[in-house]
Amino acid sequence: MRGEFTGEPVPSDVLDRVLGAAHAAPSVGLTQPWDFVLVRDRGIRREFRDHVHEQRAEFAATLSGERSSTFSGIKIEGILESSLGVVVSYDAGRGAPAVLGRHSIADAGLYSVCLAIQNLWLAATAEGLGLGWVSFYREEFLSRLLGIPDGVRPVAWLCLGPVSHLEDTPDLERRGWRRRRPLADVVHHDRWGAQG
Amino acid sequence: MRGEFTGEPVPSDVLDRVLGAAHAAPSVGLTQPWDFVLVRDRGIRREFRDHVHEQRAEFAATLSGERSSTFSGIKIEGILESSLGVVVSYDAGRGAPAVLGRHSIADAGLYSVCLAIQNLWLAATAEGLGLGWVSFYREEFLSRLLGIPDGVRPVAWLCLGPVSHLEDTPDLERRGWRRRRPLADVVHHDRWGAQG
Repeated sequence: MRGEFTGEPVPSDVLDRVLGAAHAAPSVGLTQPWDFVLVRDRGIRREFRDHVHEQRAEFAATLSGERSSTFSGIKIEGILESSLGVVVSYDAGRGAPAVLGRHSIADAGLYSVCLAIQNLWLAATAEGLGLGWVSFYREEFLSRLLGIPDGVRPVAWLCLGPVSHLEDTPDLERRGWRRRRPLADVVHHDRWGAQG
Repeated sequence: MRGEFTGEPVPSDVLDRVLGAAHAAPSVGLTQPWDFVLVRDRGIRREFRDHVHEQRAEFAATLSGERSSTFSGIKIEGILESSLGVVVSYDAGRGAPAVLGRHSIADAGLYSVCLAIQNLWLAATAEGLGLGWVSFYREEFLSRLLGIPDGVRPVAWLCLGPVSHLEDTPDLERRGWRRRRPLADVVHHDRWGAQG
């Protein structure tokens, strides 16, 4: 939906429901280790967009031939066109040191943040909003831009807002970048590689 | 719901819908980098449960006083009581080397796997099933147990199955481990720490 943002504001009750769904996600040790920075300021968004374009160019330089021309036709962000950016971050210090469930797997807190992001995404879709996850940025750049403190890691910049319409097929499939695979290819039984 | 699993089988059409929801999650570069190992074998599950109990004891040893006694009353897994385990893993090689959107952020693929997990969780809940994420294990142990190849990382063991009932309040809140925080505490405007 990156090409379909209208830029109209998101009504505050709708935004509250979307953020409320994110905040209701399960989390390791019930730490709720996420934060949401709502970025509407156009100056900040413009700086971020310029940085993303640099990162895009870096990636484009790694491609050749057909991949390169396919990629050049893909819109990777709607930072200025969307109504706002929602930056979701991970605070590893929340509930620390004894986080129940993070003793064996350090990344478990980061996983919780992603569960919140998917709740946010689904709630946004249910409200008829479009959402695009931008991951063409350096974390240090975004932290500096928003004043995110040490110990907190930005996980996503989500472009959010009303759209002219929602597509049924993923952008990257429509643009010929990659096709989806059948579910049966990724299901195993009892042990890796075993069919049911 | 870890104490409420009935152990009854999950009908195959229900399981297909739950896995189908997971597989429909968005993913970086449309790589769909997840796999699902469905573990019903009781011998494998018993081995995993024993390992989890060791990890639990390690964590318990880091606690003292009141925290220690609160933790001792919390059931952290339903590995044998649930109908099956769903092990979700991350294959960093899928779609590599030129994964669109993973150039700047190496963990973006791992994030996609978590989006699939949250879809799975919500679909399971919608089907009236219980789900408990077990994170008290060493990744190497689980990889060896299931024969997960190098380059693929286990992300979660999900206990799944019918339950006697679903609770409204998170287990850890009911057991006095930790309380949820208000959404307003984690929302910032334009810059970290700024109120709207």
